Amino acid sequence: MAENHIPLDPTVRGGALKWIANEYYDLNGSHYDVLDELPSPLEFSRLIHISRPVLIKASEMPEIISLWTDEYLAERMEDRQISIAVTPTGRADAITRGHDGRLYFAEPHVEKMAMDAFLAKIAPDRPESNAVDKEVYYLQSQNGNMFTGRYFDLTSDPDPSEFAPLRADVPSEISWCSEALDRCPDAVNLWIGNSASVTSVHSDPYENIYSVIRGAKHFTLFPPTEGWCLLEHSYPHARYVRSQATSQLELIPSPPTTSEVRWSSVLDPSAAVFLPSEAHPIHITVHAGETLYLPAGWWHYVRQSEVTIAINHWYDMEGRGTAWVWLNLLRGLIDVPPGNGDEEQI
Amino acid sequence: MAENHIPLDPTVRGGALKWIANEYYDLNGSHYDVLDELPSPLEFSRLIHISRPVLIKASEMPEIISLWTDEYLAERMEDRQISIAVTPTGRADAITRGHDGRLYFAEPHVEKMAMDAFLAKIAPDRPESNAVDKEVYYLQSQNGNMFTGRYFDLTSDPDPSEFAPLRADVPSEISWCSEALDRCPDAVNLWIGNSASVTSVHSDPYENIYSVIRGAKHFTLFPPTEGWCLLEHSYPHARYVRSQATSQLELIPSPPTTSEVRWSSVLDPSAAVFLPSEAHPIHITVHAGETLYLPAGWWHYVRQSEVTIAINHWYDMEGRGTAWVWLNLLRGLIDVPPGNGDEEQI
Repeated sequence: MAENHIPLDPTVRGGALKWIANEYYDLNGSHYDVLDELPSPLEFSRLIHISRPVLIKASEMPEIISLWTDEYLAERMEDRQISIAVTPTGRADAITRGHDGRLYFAEPHVEKMAMDAFLAKIAPDRPESNAVDKEVYYLQSQNGNMFTGRYFDLTSDPDPSEFAPLRADVPSEISWCSEALDRCPDAVNLWIGNSASVTSVHSDPYENIYSVIRGAKHFTLFPPTEGWCLLEHSYPHARYVRSQATSQLELIPSPPTTSEVRWSSVLDPSAAVFLPSEAHPIHITVHAGETLYLPAGWWHYVRQSEVTIAINHWYDMEGRGTAWVWLNLLRGLIDVPPGNGDEEQI
Repeated sequence: MAENHIPLDPTVRGGALKWIANEYYDLNGSHYDVLDELPSPLEFSRLIHISRPVLIKASEMPEIISLWTDEYLAERMEDRQISIAVTPTGRADAITRGHDGRLYFAEPHVEKMAMDAFLAKIAPDRPESNAVDKEVYYLQSQNGNMFTGRYFDLTSDPDPSEFAPLRADVPSEISWCSEALDRCPDAVNLWIGNSASVTSVHSDPYENIYSVIRGAKHFTLFPPTEGWCLLEHSYPHARYVRSQATSQLELIPSPPTTSEVRWSSVLDPSAAVFLPSEAHPIHITVHAGETLYLPAGWWHYVRQSEVTIAINHWYDMEGRGTAWVWLNLLRGLIDVPPGNGDEEQI
C-alpha cells in the first residue's frame, strides 16, 4: 500500500482515528458470526461486504484432516527439499532486539530440509539439549507455496511448488470465495508449526480464508479502525543468518539502503493491558476442521497450541469502490515514529 | 443520520475531505458499469460492495412500459384521491427564496386530486394562462406510496396505498436486490412528473433501484466523497400553502422551533462551473425500460425531459461493518454554515 500524506498534523490525525474507532465499535461491537456450514457464494459475498471475521465450523477440505498424518506427509514428499523458517525465538517477521541493543524487524533464516526432518524438529518430544536444539522451525513461506496466481493463468509459465506431491489433496481455490469475489486466489499457502511459533500482529490487504487441518490456531483480531492502537514504528531491517563459525543464528542488520519496515511495537496484543482503551481485541480459536474468514485489512496475531497444520487462501481484495480508500485513509492517518528501542512492549 | 462532532476544526476537516475525494477519484474515476441484462443476486451483491452507479438496460417490470398509458392509469385509479406536490417553480424539497429575501428549505404544498385531473395538469399541451395555471404538479410522495416495509411484515397492520389498484402491476420487491441484501424493501415509490419538476441534489442512506417506465430521467451523480463540494448550509424550514384569499401558493416559514434543514446551496450541480475542482459529476440518462442502481450515500440531482413515470425501490443499506461509519465520517467532516442568502448559486 502506498504511503500517504494526509494534510493533518499528528495530534489532529490522532483525534480523527479515535473518532473513527469509537464510531465503528459503537456500531459493530466485538461481534463475529459463526456459521455451522460453508456459505453459498451469495452468502459469502454479503459477508465480504460486511468485512468482519466469520468462524465457519466446516472445512472446504475435510478429507485431509485424517489423511495428513506425519507419516503420510513424509511419504508423499519423500526427500524433496522444502524451505523452513528458523529463528532462536519462534518470532519470524517480528520486532527483535539486536546485539547492539537496537530493535529490528527480523526476518527468519531459511533452511532447506526434507519433510520428515522438519516434522521431527517440531515434534513435541524433541530433545532440547542446547541452543541450536531449541531453535524454532516453522513452515511459513507464505509465497504461494502451494499455488500462486500463475497456477490459474493458462497463458503463464508453469507454477512450481515445493509441495507439488500434496497439490492433489488441496483445493486450488475456495469455490464460494472465488465466486463471491469473481476471481481466483492470489496465493495458497501451507503452514506447519508448533506452539513455539508466533505470528506477530500485522494486517494484509487480502481477503483470507484460513482452513485449519490439524491442531488449533488462536487468533487475536483487531478491525482496521483499531490499527493505530498497535503503535507501529519504523524499524531497520535485519535477517537471521547461521554463523559458519559457531553454527548459531545471528541477527545481521541489512545494509542501510534497505527500506525500513513499518511494524507494530506490541509484542503480545492479546494482553490488552498494553493497548489504548479504544482497542477491542477479538479472540477466536480455529480448530481442525474449521475455517476462518479473516477480512482484508484486519490486524491479526496468531498462536498455535500444538503441532498445527493450516492452509490459507489469499484473494486480492476488491479494488474498486471504497474499501481500498478506507484502508489507505486509516493507514495514512497513523503517525509512525522511528523505533528507538524504548517502545518495546513485553 | 445522527449529527457528528469530529474533533477537528473546519479548515483541517476540509483538508481531510479533499484528500479523501482525490484518493477515491484517482482509484475510481468517473466510470460506471452498464449491464445489458438484469444481474443475478450474486452479481448484484458484488456491485453493492463496490457501491458505484450501474445502468441496467433492462427492467424488472417490462410489462407496464406499454400497459401504463394515461387512459389505463386513469381508468384503474378511478376517482381515488392521490397526493400531489404543487409548487410555483417545480422545485419541491429545495432551497427557495422567501418574500423576506431569506433562503428557506421549502416543502411543497400537497393537493389531493384524481389521477385523470393530475395527468391533465402535467400534459404537454396544458394551457398556461396565469400563475396558477403555471404551477408545477409532481407525484413524488416518496413515503412508500406503492408499498412500505409494513407490506412485507405479516405481523403488522395492513399497508394502505393511494395506488392500491396499481399494485398488481408493480413488483413489491426487486428479487435480485432483495436476495443480494437479504432483506425486503423499506419503501417502493411511484413518481410521475414532467420537465418542469426538478429534484434538488441530495443523498439518501438507502440502496436505490430506479426503474423508468415512461420518458427519461437525467441523473447527475456525485460519490459520497464529493458531498462537501455541494456546499451544504443550514436553512430554516418553510412550506408552500395555498392562500384562501388569492388562491396563489405562498411560502410560509415554519415556527422557529422547527429544526433547520441541512441542504446543498447548489441549485444546478450539473453545471460544474459552480463546483470545486474536486467535484466530478457523472451524467446518466435512464430511459423507459432501463434501471439505475443508485448506491446508498450517492448524491443525485434529477431532471426529466417529458412526462416521466418511474418506480423506485429503496432498501435499507447494510448497517454492519464499514459502510455506515464511512458515510457518517464523510458527513461529519463537512462544515455546514448557516445559510445567509448570499450563497445561492443560480
